[in-house]
Amino acid sequence: MPTENELAARARLTHEVEVTPAFYDIDVMEVVYHGHYVKYLELARSALLAQYDYDYPRMRDSGYAWPVVDMRLKYVRSATFGQKLKVSATITEWENRLRIDYVMRDAATGHKVNVAHTIQVAVNIATREMCFVCPPVLHDRLGVSA
Amino acid sequence: MPTENELAARARLTHEVEVTPAFYDIDVMEVVYHGHYVKYLELARSALLAQYDYDYPRMRDSGYAWPVVDMRLKYVRSATFGQKLKVSATITEWENRLRIDYVMRDAATGHKVNVAHTIQVAVNIATREMCFVCPPVLHDRLGVSA
Amino acid sequence: MPTENELAARARLTHEVEVTPAFYDIDVMEVVYHGHYVKYLELARSALLAQYDYDYPRMRDSGYAWPVVDMRLKYVRSATFGQKLKVSATITEWENRLRIDYVMRDAATGHKVNVAHTIQVAVNIATREMCFVCPPVLHDRLGVSA
Amino acid sequence: MPTENELAARARLTHEVEVTPAFYDIDVMEVVYHGHYVKYLELARSALLAQYDYDYPRMRDSGYAWPVVDMRLKYVRSATFGQKLKVSATITEWENRLRIDYVMRDAATGHKVNVAHTIQVAVNIATREMCFVCPPVLHDRLGVSA
Repeated sequence: MPTENELAARARLTHEVEVTPAFYDIDVMEVVYHGHYVKYLELARSALLAQYDYDYPRMRDSGYAWPVVDMRLKYVRSATFGQKLKVSATITEWENRLRIDYVMRDAATGHKVNVAHTIQVAVNIATREMCFVCPPVLHDRLGVSA
Repeated sequence: MPTENELAARARLTHEVEVTPAFYDIDVMEVVYHGHYVKYLELARSALLAQYDYDYPRMRDSGYAWPVVDMRLKYVRSATFGQKLKVSATITEWENRLRIDYVMRDAATGHKVNVAHTIQVAVNIATREMCFVCPPVLHDRLGVSA
Repeated sequence: MPTENELAARARLTHEVEVTPAFYDIDVMEVVYHGHYVKYLELARSALLAQYDYDYPRMRDSGYAWPVVDMRLKYVRSATFGQKLKVSATITEWENRLRIDYVMRDAATGHKVNVAHTIQVAVNIATREMCFVCPPVLHDRLGVSA
Repeated sequence: MPTENELAARARLTHEVEVTPAFYDIDVMEVVYHGHYVKYLELARSALLAQYDYDYPRMRDSGYAWPVVDMRLKYVRSATFGQKLKVSATITEWENRLRIDYVMRDAATGHKVNVAHTIQVAVNIATREMCFVCPPVLHDRLGVSA
């Protein structure tokens, strides 16, 4: 069971963006092609990490790349052209790897459209070596202890 | 433990394609952006199902759409521009849902690059209703019993 | 030389959107891949036509598809991750074909990033025949005479 | 009028690839979305330049990036899922800028699907400065005189 501190951290480590599927994202069945949801996750993750001044350019400046090593998406409802979606992203692990959980909902009804998660690990850009523990810069930016 | 018949079916229900990442698939770290692997899975799945005369146009003609409802990818190694990859796709479930497992390897070394799976369910195009059992057309095409 | 009426129409038939290149839009040179600008044009065009209640779903409902038959982009400056861009789209022809001109600028400095145009023609969805004159529904929606 | 030498050079500076539109390239009208043709041009250009050992990694190693600064596509016929297309790319200018002309045809009938061109200029990666004359490395690789 998460402690109170953990719950508070998780509540804090959340960000939400609004996404509207474009014409080039829908397929012949007139729904968003399943592969394009990955872009919506990226937009939510990017905005979340930007809150902590740790989006892509800051990551690179800190000497680390953060490749996605695991990704899962469950499609609950289809989405379509012009439908407003809310995508919330929450950091749920930060010790050895950076795990982010996502929930995508229809903005009008709140109906769940997709749930997903991604796992990233730090790679030292200079040595190209993977880190088995997240580097301190992540914890500093997020304001969490390792 | 799978029976001998099951093993034989799985050996048969496999197909492999070769994919070479294009310039527009690689990101600033000079590796394939994780989202683009979804396209490589699509190419393998599409070629596999075409073997059974059940690629997208035949699916539509049969009255069913087959949306992906679950997708997972694990990234083992990065891939880069011009690297030849082999993607094998195997149908591993066909009773209530269509599950396909993928292994992506470097074509030259055989090193594993990615393992993934997708799960699709049949949706009756006319009624927009999801089928809880795969329709007979799938089993007919694959030459399996439900 | 355009008449005063024409100038007024053009001033009116304009719309601007803001676009911010995402991580998946930038290439190894750390600039937006030239092919992705086509998406930014789509976003501007789609928002422009929505002003006239004639975005994709309304087009389809009106019985016409409007495929792009000609597209040109001139790249003046490169754009990069997170850079705010303003894309303005203006309808400049509507008689026999729908021509839209685009200017993309850096939102902060106003520096020109890209100029482009697209030409679309109406295709009757039922007959699959191309129209050599734009159908009246376009002129009705735009409030222009043919 | 091109001289005989020029005609011979152009005949030589040509390459053709085969492309088959994937499911994720077709839109709700069941035709290839116009923006995706840009990828097909990239595949043809990339294969053409690889013939001269001057594809993207070699460009970078030579100290030059070659951004596209002008691109035009004319859509003659629509293309669809699984349709085999031949895309030929020909280098038609190499003095001050690299111009490539493309013709895309249905592989079975030879019917023209698209004609296009791209113009690239050399940018010195170290100084980020644009070159007003193509650097000698291009002419060496292509076996042409400037």
